[in-house]
Amino acid sequence: MPDGGPPTIVSIAERAGVSIASVSRVLNGVGARPETVRKVERAAAELGYVPNAVARSLKGGRTKQLTFAMQDIGNPVYVAMVREIQAVARAAGHRLLIHSTDADTEEELSVVRSLGDRRSDGLILCPIRITPEHIEVLENAAGPVVVIGALPERVRVDAVQTDSVAGAQLAVRHLAETGRRRIAFVNGPLDTVPGHNRRQGYLKALADQGLAHDPALEHATDFGLAAGRAAAHRLLAADPPPDAFFCANDQLALGASQAVHERGLRIPQDIAVVGMDDSELARAGWPPLTSVGLGSEERGRTAARMLLERLGDAENPAPAAARRTTAQPRLVVRASTVAGHVPATDPAGTA
Amino acid sequence: MPDGGPPTIVSIAERAGVSIASVSRVLNGVGARPETVRKVERAAAELGYVPNAVARSLKGGRTKQLTFAMQDIGNPVYVAMVREIQAVARAAGHRLLIHSTDADTEEELSVVRSLGDRRSDGLILCPIRITPEHIEVLENAAGPVVVIGALPERVRVDAVQTDSVAGAQLAVRHLAETGRRRIAFVNGPLDTVPGHNRRQGYLKALADQGLAHDPALEHATDFGLAAGRAAAHRLLAADPPPDAFFCANDQLALGASQAVHERGLRIPQDIAVVGMDDSELARAGWPPLTSVGLGSEERGRTAARMLLERLGDAENPAPAAARRTTAQPRLVVRASTVAGHVPATDPAGTA
Repeated sequence: MPDGGPPTIVSIAERAGVSIASVSRVLNGVGARPETVRKVERAAAELGYVPNAVARSLKGGRTKQLTFAMQDIGNPVYVAMVREIQAVARAAGHRLLIHSTDADTEEELSVVRSLGDRRSDGLILCPIRITPEHIEVLENAAGPVVVIGALPERVRVDAVQTDSVAGAQLAVRHLAETGRRRIAFVNGPLDTVPGHNRRQGYLKALADQGLAHDPALEHATDFGLAAGRAAAHRLLAADPPPDAFFCANDQLALGASQAVHERGLRIPQDIAVVGMDDSELARAGWPPLTSVGLGSEERGRTAARMLLERLGDAENPAPAAARRTTAQPRLVVRASTVAGHVPATDPAGTA
Repeated sequence: MPDGGPPTIVSIAERAGVSIASVSRVLNGVGARPETVRKVERAAAELGYVPNAVARSLKGGRTKQLTFAMQDIGNPVYVAMVREIQAVARAAGHRLLIHSTDADTEEELSVVRSLGDRRSDGLILCPIRITPEHIEVLENAAGPVVVIGALPERVRVDAVQTDSVAGAQLAVRHLAETGRRRIAFVNGPLDTVPGHNRRQGYLKALADQGLAHDPALEHATDFGLAAGRAAAHRLLAADPPPDAFFCANDQLALGASQAVHERGLRIPQDIAVVGMDDSELARAGWPPLTSVGLGSEERGRTAARMLLERLGDAENPAPAAARRTTAQPRLVVRASTVAGHVPATDPAGTA
């Protein structure tokens, strides 16, 4: 840093040989001729000028940006969360940056660590697994973090969770109550939190309903349309065959529906199909899917509000007492389990 | 800035009254106890310390972050672009930040202007409209920008475009060649670039195929499932009724398919349905949708590569000569127009 105190717009203009107005335009990113931009940037760099947004954040001010990190933006559950988080952030004058980690744990952790860079005021993280390293990094984050997912009670980080065990029980109970007895389960990977919990709910509900657990009616695969279609074709070969599919998410359920159609069977008359998440996809299939919503919108909204509360409390960016809230699951019945049924909450198709 | 030259990790540790190791951990965002983080941040701010990432970018270095801004992350077309952009960015050691502008022009422009903040090295922007203000802001951006969309030839900004007029012609020609004569068009808003161009293609193709244009078979609405379903119910009331639906995107086509099922008609025997974008949704419906792909993946990949090329050329962040590339549309035939047809490119449903 040269002598003469901190660089000013005037000293940068002098050094760059351009007008003060041009410097202002460039430093505020309002735009200027490319040569001007280069001259001003060079002068600013030589004088060690700190851009306003960053200078503000160094002084304990704000970047007015929040980050939401999740594993796959292709999953409509995260899209639903993004919409709600963005609405809350906008209302509070914040921009939302979205980071899709592709389920890469290292990248997930580096996003938390990069809160130290001061490019974002706070982070909402939706991890698919929680490792001891996650917990250490989360508790030592350089800025406020809210986790959408289950965290051990002792972890000093805010978390918004759901109850997917109870959600799976809602689905299976609905199928049993509508007369299904051979309820097959199309699940995602068992080493994921959703896969593990949804299976627990499936097994509990079978017991509650007095239905036997037949391993031939269970299949774990990837979370996805093609995987669900393949799994359903395999399960339909069981003898006796299933009279219902409970699927661990809506993509799996849409794939299973395709397999049922391909066998020339009718939904729901011959076989019922239930999805999970009640995402936009549930309304896209034919027939529209009965699905269990796990409060994606509510979880996104709540997480955003908790984060903004932490940001409002400049003296205490790290939670004194971590907060836990839980979104309750909700069964939405559509025509894939009850012929012709359209819930009042769905947008009308006829105008 | 106090006397004594630029702040160092040592002077910050002295002022904060913590160890040099702690300062290092905090400044690198690796994590430390909250009180330590606060002490170090206060000392760093008082000494005017510039965080590494920002200091690097001021010195003409990089943040190693790219930004992709589009209007609605809920649209699978953008999800397909994100996947490809992210893959290219990762391979080059860059992170991708995603910004969903909700089709807010002001926000779109502020994202371009904020390149001056140096939180991101470059921007890929997918605007739904191009105003004169867009052009001025884009040409004066403080960092490299690649636009996914149509830009006037004279605009000195790289752009990756598609040919949706030709795409719409492919769809209508396919329907005519498979014997359809009353081809209805379910379009999005006419004041959007996609809505305008897809209608031009529809009208051109009708003329090419010697089919009369019947205004009773055209309906413009929002891009969305419920809107497509409502529009299709209205169009099915035409006399004589349509024998095919060409829809301006896959969401509209899925909604139209639901309306056809609700009328007890068969797809494709009684009425054919064609979507546009060939998104993941095209494979999610029943029957799977014939759709015209507009190269979303290719456009994302190409835009990311063009941006990285600009970044590699530090001396010339603004294009000397703007580049234009065009992704060609491609018809993918599925069972919604040709009974039982499964393209070789679709993932197998049976394992």
